[in-house]
Amino acid sequence: MLRSVLAIGAHPDDIELGCGGTLAAHRAAGDAVTMLVVTGGQNGPGATAERRAEAEAAARNLDCLLRWGHLVDCAVTADAATIAVIEKAIRDTDADVVYVHAPDDSHQDHRAVAAATLSAGRHSRRILHYRSPSTTRFEPTVFTDISAHLDTKIAALSCHRSQVENSAMVDPEVVAASARHYGAQARVRHAEAFMPARFVWDLSPVLEMPLITQMPAYPAQVPA
Amino acid sequence: MLRSVLAIGAHPDDIELGCGGTLAAHRAAGDAVTMLVVTGGQNGPGATAERRAEAEAAARNLDCLLRWGHLVDCAVTADAATIAVIEKAIRDTDADVVYVHAPDDSHQDHRAVAAATLSAGRHSRRILHYRSPSTTRFEPTVFTDISAHLDTKIAALSCHRSQVENSAMVDPEVVAASARHYGAQARVRHAEAFMPARFVWDLSPVLEMPLITQMPAYPAQVPA
Amino acid sequence: MLRSVLAIGAHPDDIELGCGGTLAAHRAAGDAVTMLVVTGGQNGPGATAERRAEAEAAARNLDCLLRWGHLVDCAVTADAATIAVIEKAIRDTDADVVYVHAPDDSHQDHRAVAAATLSAGRHSRRILHYRSPSTTRFEPTVFTDISAHLDTKIAALSCHRSQVENSAMVDPEVVAASARHYGAQARVRHAEAFMPARFVWDLSPVLEMPLITQMPAYPAQVPA
Amino acid sequence: MLRSVLAIGAHPDDIELGCGGTLAAHRAAGDAVTMLVVTGGQNGPGATAERRAEAEAAARNLDCLLRWGHLVDCAVTADAATIAVIEKAIRDTDADVVYVHAPDDSHQDHRAVAAATLSAGRHSRRILHYRSPSTTRFEPTVFTDISAHLDTKIAALSCHRSQVENSAMVDPEVVAASARHYGAQARVRHAEAFMPARFVWDLSPVLEMPLITQMPAYPAQVPA
Amino acid sequence: MLRSVLAIGAHPDDIELGCGGTLAAHRAAGDAVTMLVVTGGQNGPGATAERRAEAEAAARNLDCLLRWGHLVDCAVTADAATIAVIEKAIRDTDADVVYVHAPDDSHQDHRAVAAATLSAGRHSRRILHYRSPSTTRFEPTVFTDISAHLDTKIAALSCHRSQVENSAMVDPEVVAASARHYGAQARVRHAEAFMPARFVWDLSPVLEMPLITQMPAYPAQVPA
Amino acid sequence: MLRSVLAIGAHPDDIELGCGGTLAAHRAAGDAVTMLVVTGGQNGPGATAERRAEAEAAARNLDCLLRWGHLVDCAVTADAATIAVIEKAIRDTDADVVYVHAPDDSHQDHRAVAAATLSAGRHSRRILHYRSPSTTRFEPTVFTDISAHLDTKIAALSCHRSQVENSAMVDPEVVAASARHYGAQARVRHAEAFMPARFVWDLSPVLEMPLITQMPAYPAQVPA
Repeated sequence: MLRSVLAIGAHPDDIELGCGGTLAAHRAAGDAVTMLVVTGGQNGPGATAERRAEAEAAARNLDCLLRWGHLVDCAVTADAATIAVIEKAIRDTDADVVYVHAPDDSHQDHRAVAAATLSAGRHSRRILHYRSPSTTRFEPTVFTDISAHLDTKIAALSCHRSQVENSAMVDPEVVAASARHYGAQARVRHAEAFMPARFVWDLSPVLEMPLITQMPAYPAQVPA
Repeated sequence: MLRSVLAIGAHPDDIELGCGGTLAAHRAAGDAVTMLVVTGGQNGPGATAERRAEAEAAARNLDCLLRWGHLVDCAVTADAATIAVIEKAIRDTDADVVYVHAPDDSHQDHRAVAAATLSAGRHSRRILHYRSPSTTRFEPTVFTDISAHLDTKIAALSCHRSQVENSAMVDPEVVAASARHYGAQARVRHAEAFMPARFVWDLSPVLEMPLITQMPAYPAQVPA
Repeated sequence: MLRSVLAIGAHPDDIELGCGGTLAAHRAAGDAVTMLVVTGGQNGPGATAERRAEAEAAARNLDCLLRWGHLVDCAVTADAATIAVIEKAIRDTDADVVYVHAPDDSHQDHRAVAAATLSAGRHSRRILHYRSPSTTRFEPTVFTDISAHLDTKIAALSCHRSQVENSAMVDPEVVAASARHYGAQARVRHAEAFMPARFVWDLSPVLEMPLITQMPAYPAQVPA
Repeated sequence: MLRSVLAIGAHPDDIELGCGGTLAAHRAAGDAVTMLVVTGGQNGPGATAERRAEAEAAARNLDCLLRWGHLVDCAVTADAATIAVIEKAIRDTDADVVYVHAPDDSHQDHRAVAAATLSAGRHSRRILHYRSPSTTRFEPTVFTDISAHLDTKIAALSCHRSQVENSAMVDPEVVAASARHYGAQARVRHAEAFMPARFVWDLSPVLEMPLITQMPAYPAQVPA
Repeated sequence: MLRSVLAIGAHPDDIELGCGGTLAAHRAAGDAVTMLVVTGGQNGPGATAERRAEAEAAARNLDCLLRWGHLVDCAVTADAATIAVIEKAIRDTDADVVYVHAPDDSHQDHRAVAAATLSAGRHSRRILHYRSPSTTRFEPTVFTDISAHLDTKIAALSCHRSQVENSAMVDPEVVAASARHYGAQARVRHAEAFMPARFVWDLSPVLEMPLITQMPAYPAQVPA
Repeated sequence: MLRSVLAIGAHPDDIELGCGGTLAAHRAAGDAVTMLVVTGGQNGPGATAERRAEAEAAARNLDCLLRWGHLVDCAVTADAATIAVIEKAIRDTDADVVYVHAPDDSHQDHRAVAAATLSAGRHSRRILHYRSPSTTRFEPTVFTDISAHLDTKIAALSCHRSQVENSAMVDPEVVAASARHYGAQARVRHAEAFMPARFVWDLSPVLEMPLITQMPAYPAQVPA
């Protein structure tokens, strides 16, 4: 049985920064992955259409499905409407694991998306919080080994050219440094780090086997 | 590839109380499991030989290998000798995951075994702290679903008759209640709860398959 | 002197789940108890009139006064209006102790009611946070012994038939399990658990005496 | 029924500094109070005999029973011997509530006494940690109103003349300031502050009554 | 090079209570200091014009520049508008260090101003949270020595006559007690205490020198 | 007035790993710096004489005074003897700021040195905890900008050839990555990160001036 993975971010590039390597690892393991970008990132540098195209390119790079929340940048609150958007994504994907912002973050949208996801995912068994450059409190205890996927992560992030070129917060050099920093902490080479809201470890048998190659083509698609 | 699991407890019955259901789940998944009991529990109720026999019966019930640390009850410290005992067990079992007491506990042996395991396991990628009745601070974020294994856990615990009958701290009714309490928290029926010191989630493909039945017989053995 | 107790919950059934046994213990001790239900629970399963009747039945079961906040389910915020509702209840009851949701909770209404109560109760000497199934961080240090009142708690909870039958979050079996779990932690049989925002322990003389039987009849009343 | 109170400190003057006002309040409520001083304070300023006499004078001031642990200053560890001393005191006094140092403290004896008390009091329902000038982490949530007893606290502390005159850590002016600081936090005039290890709040009826005056004379006594 | 200091508070008197002594110490060191008061405090006791005059008098006392945010008392949220007000103040003053409320506070405006400042100051190297009487969680690790400035602090606070006379929360006696309490913790006589959001310690050479006396007159000014 | 700085580590290389860049920055600011290495590191890879020579070379590189504690590797406890060694170093250097291991660390010597330093430094106004690869809990809030000193740090660390070549825990690549990771967090290029036990920020005037060049030659010296 393959897993269904849902990664949620407030703005285009948040997911790639926080857990892009892990999503690549999920895809390599044959899991289905959907990225839910809650707003269009209208407030940062970069025109809306440009940011939309960048997000699509990044999702293609990561070989993940892309889904938009259509809420407004810098005006997200953890209210019933936001919760409904996320609930629908969890239901549609039947997600086994949900990745989302850490709850303590200096960006109001990040806080709101984290809180709304905890509401929407109240029946989910696995919710992992990733770190953003604006996260204020982060004590990770769960890690994934992204040694084989750091390049993919940085390639996906680089698709967000409007951000990489204009925001001090999006710096591939820092991404690589943090991956090595957390890797040392996790006793692997490169790692992404998570704070679990709740993580039920599935002990079902783990088998080593040739990677399934007949997996159906899985291009990034954008629902209306 | 099957996993190698090492569970460490200060006294006979500590492991069963803290993660007995999880060990049963590991065995059901085909993993190899070793229990390292650091002392003979000479200070609690029950004669030493009796407690040794109880621990052997419990390990047989859980179908796990049993290993003794031969240190002295109520006199364990996190010194080089204790660390060496645990380092040897980690090396001998080539452990993929280590279970051990939570670090904040009112029993001095529990604290010492937790601290010594963090030293001994400094290169391990997965160390999970379980809860004891004497644990003082415990905020679990990682859970395992033991709904299918609660009976086995209680059966193994019941082998420690000298404790169940004489210690207010070992009460099967409480064990079942806590499993349900943590189950609700984990969104499953019955759960065991853990605080990760460090947990690298292995994303290798997970496949559903008939349980391997030809697994070699794996009786509890007691190394000299 | 008898105590005046105020318990505050966002929805019908929250108070019963969180501290119903403790309220029963307060009544047994002769204290006056008021339950303030901030919304009508319009969004959960069950029609509004049905939920209102259920709450009244539960309050009768606990022999407590019931008071409604008339705010809207799933739309509570910790703003001046909500604070005013709670301030008035504190003033009207001259509350010696206030029970309310824990501040870290995945339900937005629970968070809002907790925050508004801390504002409204800024001069109160005793505010205790109870746990809900949706609470995310909870490290209790204060407990009450509800061994003699668990049945009453579950009977009161069972009045909320629309919830018990339809919500995975309201399960009497879990309520009993958690009471035993926290009881073991508190060194009693069954307990409810609390995180104090602020708790001034009153050291006035405690005397054992026959329960006052001439207490005025104290039926659940619903203010307009 | 009156309560039996046990206050434990590593050195003469620790108990007075940490909870002297609360002990006075317990005595005023008619409770029996025993102070267990674990060492003779041989390492601080002041000769041993002098410190012994100071402690006796302070206990007389507080009208509490004094008991010595006879361990060695600056060499206390949380081992079986220390635990046995405290277990015996808990058993002898049949303590309803135990006061002891906070666990995080820069003085090794304070840490050891706190840890040993958590072991010894593993079946106790009420253990409250008080603060010392050397405490490093202290987030109090439980308070007692000592407005009527601050003078008694300072008088008892002043009996420890060898300390007040020679140690920067024992300063009555700071004691009064902290009592006011915590009083404001507790919404009373003067308070002592505590972190509960575990506190079962007894809801038995609380009645206002004239203070019992025929209480048996209760002078400070020093067991051999 | 002199430092530029920005202190932010939700209401008139918040800054004086939280870090008035530190601001005086900054002025004594020759630093430029701006106080940003986000609302007019319309909801507390005292007419708006009166409170405005009080704030101006206090700023004159502290010899600091005063700046108003013009938001509405009890209705501040951490939204884009509030963030913009604070961003502008940080930019205008080119602040080297920002002082602001602690994030966990029972007053909704305090929480909102703290959160908005973390957003606005996302590129700042030094943000220190001060304590208010309504702060709920506060574990200070950074302190300033205000022994020479406590009188100035209390004089500035006393300018807020409408508060000192009518609010239990504003009490000069408590201010002095807390300064002594935190002073003992910091190993100085009187201290103010801070929780750093982020504090880059500048190790540039520190030289002892006669205080610059020709500093340009620096009266409190109120921008339109 | 120049500052006197004392950095304390359990083994040769601990100080360089934890705060080597900061010590270089202190030297650049003209401060006097002493490194106290508590044990000879007899248990790690490398002969004792070799490690002694490596530590001397590293201290020369950092232009700091080196001082040995002469305790035994892997057998340090926070007892009176260890405290005395550190007290003497604090007294001899009249230290204005003390750097030491973080208290939560999986290495027993690191924990013991951290605890003993908190005892020995009970009157110190500035104690900052640095991180080691074995640190288990670390939430830094204080940072230093080591952008200009990262090369010096790595050069000093490289003097510990026996460690760099043989221990997975000492890896210059990780050191550089962590410096960039924490730099991003501190809003500078490269940073070292600290948890303050207690940090009194000295607000005395900070002036920009040409670096004092006539500073007396300050070679690394080894007291007997």
